[in-house]
Amino acid sequence: MATRGIEADTSALARRYSEVRATTVRLAAPLSAEDQMLQSMPEASPTKWHLAHTTWFFETFLLTAHAPYYRPFDERFRQLFNSYYKQVGAHPYRGARGLMSRPSLDEVHAYRRGVDEAMIELIERADDDVRALIELGVNHEQQHQELILTDIKHALWSSPLRPAFRRHSELVGRGKPRVGDPCHTVPSQTGWQEFEGGIREIGHAGGGFAFDNEGPRHEALLRPFRMASRAVSNGEWLEFMRNGGYRRPELWLSDGWDTECAQQWEAPLYWERRDNEWWQYTLSGTRRVEESEPACHVSYYEADAYARWAGARLPLEEEWEMAAEKHPSRGTMLEDEVFHPQQTRAGDPSHTLQQVFGDVWEWTASPYAAYPGFRPAAGALGEYNGKFMCNQMVLRGGSCATPASHIRATYRNFFPPQARWQFSGVRLASDID
Amino acid sequence: MATRGIEADTSALARRYSEVRATTVRLAAPLSAEDQMLQSMPEASPTKWHLAHTTWFFETFLLTAHAPYYRPFDERFRQLFNSYYKQVGAHPYRGARGLMSRPSLDEVHAYRRGVDEAMIELIERADDDVRALIELGVNHEQQHQELILTDIKHALWSSPLRPAFRRHSELVGRGKPRVGDPCHTVPSQTGWQEFEGGIREIGHAGGGFAFDNEGPRHEALLRPFRMASRAVSNGEWLEFMRNGGYRRPELWLSDGWDTECAQQWEAPLYWERRDNEWWQYTLSGTRRVEESEPACHVSYYEADAYARWAGARLPLEEEWEMAAEKHPSRGTMLEDEVFHPQQTRAGDPSHTLQQVFGDVWEWTASPYAAYPGFRPAAGALGEYNGKFMCNQMVLRGGSCATPASHIRATYRNFFPPQARWQFSGVRLASDID
Amino acid sequence: MATRGIEADTSALARRYSEVRATTVRLAAPLSAEDQMLQSMPEASPTKWHLAHTTWFFETFLLTAHAPYYRPFDERFRQLFNSYYKQVGAHPYRGARGLMSRPSLDEVHAYRRGVDEAMIELIERADDDVRALIELGVNHEQQHQELILTDIKHALWSSPLRPAFRRHSELVGRGKPRVGDPCHTVPSQTGWQEFEGGIREIGHAGGGFAFDNEGPRHEALLRPFRMASRAVSNGEWLEFMRNGGYRRPELWLSDGWDTECAQQWEAPLYWERRDNEWWQYTLSGTRRVEESEPACHVSYYEADAYARWAGARLPLEEEWEMAAEKHPSRGTMLEDEVFHPQQTRAGDPSHTLQQVFGDVWEWTASPYAAYPGFRPAAGALGEYNGKFMCNQMVLRGGSCATPASHIRATYRNFFPPQARWQFSGVRLASDID
Amino acid sequence: MATRGIEADTSALARRYSEVRATTVRLAAPLSAEDQMLQSMPEASPTKWHLAHTTWFFETFLLTAHAPYYRPFDERFRQLFNSYYKQVGAHPYRGARGLMSRPSLDEVHAYRRGVDEAMIELIERADDDVRALIELGVNHEQQHQELILTDIKHALWSSPLRPAFRRHSELVGRGKPRVGDPCHTVPSQTGWQEFEGGIREIGHAGGGFAFDNEGPRHEALLRPFRMASRAVSNGEWLEFMRNGGYRRPELWLSDGWDTECAQQWEAPLYWERRDNEWWQYTLSGTRRVEESEPACHVSYYEADAYARWAGARLPLEEEWEMAAEKHPSRGTMLEDEVFHPQQTRAGDPSHTLQQVFGDVWEWTASPYAAYPGFRPAAGALGEYNGKFMCNQMVLRGGSCATPASHIRATYRNFFPPQARWQFSGVRLASDID
Repeated sequence: MATRGIEADTSALARRYSEVRATTVRLAAPLSAEDQMLQSMPEASPTKWHLAHTTWFFETFLLTAHAPYYRPFDERFRQLFNSYYKQVGAHPYRGARGLMSRPSLDEVHAYRRGVDEAMIELIERADDDVRALIELGVNHEQQHQELILTDIKHALWSSPLRPAFRRHSELVGRGKPRVGDPCHTVPSQTGWQEFEGGIREIGHAGGGFAFDNEGPRHEALLRPFRMASRAVSNGEWLEFMRNGGYRRPELWLSDGWDTECAQQWEAPLYWERRDNEWWQYTLSGTRRVEESEPACHVSYYEADAYARWAGARLPLEEEWEMAAEKHPSRGTMLEDEVFHPQQTRAGDPSHTLQQVFGDVWEWTASPYAAYPGFRPAAGALGEYNGKFMCNQMVLRGGSCATPASHIRATYRNFFPPQARWQFSGVRLASDID
Repeated sequence: MATRGIEADTSALARRYSEVRATTVRLAAPLSAEDQMLQSMPEASPTKWHLAHTTWFFETFLLTAHAPYYRPFDERFRQLFNSYYKQVGAHPYRGARGLMSRPSLDEVHAYRRGVDEAMIELIERADDDVRALIELGVNHEQQHQELILTDIKHALWSSPLRPAFRRHSELVGRGKPRVGDPCHTVPSQTGWQEFEGGIREIGHAGGGFAFDNEGPRHEALLRPFRMASRAVSNGEWLEFMRNGGYRRPELWLSDGWDTECAQQWEAPLYWERRDNEWWQYTLSGTRRVEESEPACHVSYYEADAYARWAGARLPLEEEWEMAAEKHPSRGTMLEDEVFHPQQTRAGDPSHTLQQVFGDVWEWTASPYAAYPGFRPAAGALGEYNGKFMCNQMVLRGGSCATPASHIRATYRNFFPPQARWQFSGVRLASDID
Repeated sequence: MATRGIEADTSALARRYSEVRATTVRLAAPLSAEDQMLQSMPEASPTKWHLAHTTWFFETFLLTAHAPYYRPFDERFRQLFNSYYKQVGAHPYRGARGLMSRPSLDEVHAYRRGVDEAMIELIERADDDVRALIELGVNHEQQHQELILTDIKHALWSSPLRPAFRRHSELVGRGKPRVGDPCHTVPSQTGWQEFEGGIREIGHAGGGFAFDNEGPRHEALLRPFRMASRAVSNGEWLEFMRNGGYRRPELWLSDGWDTECAQQWEAPLYWERRDNEWWQYTLSGTRRVEESEPACHVSYYEADAYARWAGARLPLEEEWEMAAEKHPSRGTMLEDEVFHPQQTRAGDPSHTLQQVFGDVWEWTASPYAAYPGFRPAAGALGEYNGKFMCNQMVLRGGSCATPASHIRATYRNFFPPQARWQFSGVRLASDID
Repeated sequence: MATRGIEADTSALARRYSEVRATTVRLAAPLSAEDQMLQSMPEASPTKWHLAHTTWFFETFLLTAHAPYYRPFDERFRQLFNSYYKQVGAHPYRGARGLMSRPSLDEVHAYRRGVDEAMIELIERADDDVRALIELGVNHEQQHQELILTDIKHALWSSPLRPAFRRHSELVGRGKPRVGDPCHTVPSQTGWQEFEGGIREIGHAGGGFAFDNEGPRHEALLRPFRMASRAVSNGEWLEFMRNGGYRRPELWLSDGWDTECAQQWEAPLYWERRDNEWWQYTLSGTRRVEESEPACHVSYYEADAYARWAGARLPLEEEWEMAAEKHPSRGTMLEDEVFHPQQTRAGDPSHTLQQVFGDVWEWTASPYAAYPGFRPAAGALGEYNGKFMCNQMVLRGGSCATPASHIRATYRNFFPPQARWQFSGVRLASDID
């Protein structure tokens, strides 16, 4: 959570608050009130719930805590839209968020407006601690912007008519021209960047917002390693599939193999075979798998099996962070509004890493654990990150659904190894010895 | 399904069709598009789905089959809104009906209007066979009117804010004055009507619509029996509870006891204890349990245990039918628009049975099975009733959510013995010997 | 339970007691102590448990209740070997019977001997009531003899090496010459016996032991019907399979189709395809399916689907009983020690029903329910039969694993419609009209 | 797996092989053939299976692979007793190991003797590679010695009569005098040893057997830390419980809290409250919880929550290893034959760590992951350790059920965070800053 590097300028903070809040509303705008009810699995939440919960966050941790004059919009919302903060009190079962027809979407928008008004007022009188909490809330909202996209993707794909989120023709981002091109262009060759070993500083160093789990900054001992210049492509993933990748237990972790068998995986999530071709569902609808695009919607188990098959490994998170600091190249992100990872541009891959930020989150080989000396915040906000440090793996770099202002080299995302509904892909690494 | 007794007059049939269709829309009107998405368990369906599926029934079995000029409203709906007719083709998994944000409620209303127009045209040229199918479709729609109410009751009760379907102040039926009276009046004493044994004709005799499972009419051998003048009341049910009814395995069927333990039943569905009083959720909101009202929302297992505790038994369905033909008294039904069973009026119970039709469905001791000589219809409509003749128990008499024109003495409703979300109650019987 | 027709002669009762008890021990003798531990599913119990539970029955309901001088063999057994009598007290979870390595098989045998000694003493001084209970206990033990065979068949089949219970060469019954003959002889043609309708007396009439669920004897109204001269054969079942019987939902009950799909049934239990031939596991090991033998190990759902496919129906239990009283032909039973249904002898099928008793239990179309006026016994023994009168179907006639002295025309066996591990088959019936 | 440090002397290797094999048989000797069938959960295996599987290991990886003259004892065993080596072929479902009544215990002993004979012959002609594999097999067998004890403890505790494995009076180890003493002596005070930070070598350095997951030896960067002189005691755990430890979500990881709630944990496994006292099941039977003994049978989730409550943390595995190398004190181990962790001896705790090896495995804060440069062996033996490197946590130090010759400072044990049936406890650590 935010302890450093918050906006020093009140009007800048108010502007940033308003912009982020408006972006959330705009993201959800193509969806009807009915669409915003959908919950296709316990891990994913309805859009309306995201709209409300992010508002609850500001109401609970800012207004109720720091604005004495504030009266709750609706007393029942304190419990209703609590996600998992046990110290705030009881909360509904996560898998039943789709049962909230009430409050209506209109009421949730009114809730947002009510809280926004009070927040703008609070921002003007906020001291540094409060400003840090606001910055945390803004970043929290940005996380949920990404989840709105990944959750609705799963929900619409799960619904019988499998509609698009937004037709391709409605897309307006810079990525637009490249989406759905009927070409099977070859992506750039993979190059390998080499990095030296030694003791490196890892973690957030101050000078801007960071979550508590990014610190404390500390020394880590690295060994020399290589990192691939780009993420694994669909074409390469198809090669893995053709080579029996999903049928060879020796490539898989034991839990991964059991999961694969139980869930009958034979391709990334959202892929389906039609006749002899692979198609995939995207937020713009179903279309052919493009070989040149990064492989996406794979679990850690699949990422790990792929790396073993390829004779490489996944990077450690400290390796990834060190490489990203040196090669902070930006790919496709939320603001581009294509909502789909884009193909790597051809070019000489030998001198840089491409698409380090954006396009697909990159699974690392690092279990999500506390950095040395990590202390969660006091009180309920201490539950934000720390209590999830078990049974999850770290992902790095952001995706095509991540806001550009939200990502950085030290950012640690985390999901269970079987999760596939995020925009998650693979960048390979290997030892130098 | 309808093979007899259909409306002979075209304009009368058109009028009946239109009235029933309009009633369905009016029933759903208090619910928002979001409310109409709710599905709280696989056995219950969203309101919007009911609106669409009843329309699908007419489109599939009437328009597509018998109106050569008709073009489907949307080709995808044939599969989308099929409930369980395997001979029509594949259908979505029942438990995922809550994932249909598309088509929107507006589109479903357009679908209804489109089908209604074509149906009115078809009615004018319909021969007897087609008219019989239309009558079946109308009765099918009436069944779903009841399900709209029972399913939304479960859904709203399951949603965190537990809103009312319609506030009491909005109710306009004749039952209105008695709903929610803060009185604990005593219902009439239970009297017992005696009936002679012998061979009796059972089942539908023609002269009006009936479902296929109500026939053929046939002889049954009855023994002398008694039937209670009214259904078991909440006050009596509370006495059963105080007497340890839910904690004494010797009163229960083996499967019933296992279900009770697994689901931790200690009162009818929708009851909850607040301090030392019992409250119940109704479609008008949560209020105190009225001792004078019929006990409702109990499973067959509970009904059977209650009867054993009371030293009586549940009636056989042929006993019930014979008694109902002799005492066809009407209680509260859908048209009364109170949507809650009403207390039995005081009076001399010794000469009649009260509330035989309406208020609460009455569990019988009869497993749902084919009558001698039963033949389901040919084709997909043969799946309407026959394929469910296993693991279910027969209920008789209709409830406060049943349309008055839909019920009759020969009507056989059926639900699994653990089902509790219908308006189901208990009328006792006993042997005479 | 026994209320009538018990052995009047003390020494005869003692002899019968001793013979039945010895038969149980002899049945289990081919099994090692390890084999007797096996429990392959909650519905089936280990052999050792059967040995102990039948002994517990005598200890609990006879010795403890009626022999004041008796001291329990082991106080802990009262709870340990209770199957489901809630009024006796708590009992272990049925699915965990395979966890009883203690007491050892030797101790269980000592328990049997101890109880037998005390029982012999009790028999000598028993009054009529006690003698009736002893007769009940003896019949209870005979039921468990059949379960020993059906449960160990499932257990050995479930174990990885799939051993035989007893090699064919060890079999000594009269049926021996015909077991495993490498011939595919054709069974007799099916003839149809016709029966008149009218009011008939059904249920046990006294004059010998019967369970409580076989009474009271009462009048039933029958319609004219036909009954097949023999059970459906494997050859006929193969024809049903070749005709898509397991892939045509229109033949199946709704619950049956769901079960079939979920459990991926495509043939009777214990059948497996090897190359293009069907083999089946028997208590003598795995061998080819013999077309001439009765089809066996089918569920009610399969029996019902087969009958629908064949254009016939299953008999009602009162029809079956009436037919069996007229044609009480005996087939293969426990004493024959072949433990597998035998082919119907060729001959003129037009004058009789063959193999009415023995070979395979025959599913009826009758849900298991109370006869009119049924009253379970007082106390814990009232739980013997009555509390299972829900969600089960009646089977009639006994099987190759039923003791001959245990079966009769009024005997009502019952199992859930999905059960397949009993020796259950199909005899068809049809209407005459 | 073994790549270094194997026995150089043939007769020494043969002696070691024979001793370890004999120990396994001796460990199982108190158990009847029936006891050795018990499987109480999929994670735990029957004793007989352990006896067979360890033999299968030698037969498969040594005799079949390296003794051309060897003919398999029983061809079916290759598949039957394979645990999880996919590259060897199919294997039975782990949860069904309790269904192997065949082969009998006698046959399994014959299998052991047959393989032992052939192994003794092979040892005499073995080259270094083969000797390394034999050493691996011996260590594999020692792992299963511990599992025999932990699995049978769970099984006997799960069985209704809850018998002891061996009565206390039968115990003969050096620990005997202290078991079950009716005293509530206070254990030594906890002291804290301080350790410096810096770069340290971690992992196996050669010079003796080690598993593949203990290498490669590599540098790790440590920070200054403290380690507790002994494990947390039952008395301290009771204090945690009295302080609401099991009811305060803020102390728990999110997955831990969910597990605790779902499984209704309120104390360590095998504890039960009788009146107002806590008792615990041990391999010598049920007796009072001794406050002076180390707390045992706790999951990682509980260990982590306890550490948070105590204001400390769990050690990292590299911290633990460094501390153990400096203070290699031995506590109670398998050879002591008390099969229960013993109280820490009083004394000055300030100068050393006590019971580093033995008594209880100590949960570390380290997820089980590959060391830098880790390469699993080629072929099926590569599945031994590597494929489990996900969703598990590292434990260090061995327990009262670990053979003394099997443990060392670099040894990495691993179990899922919810596992409790191992002898697992807690040693605290904390930062120095």
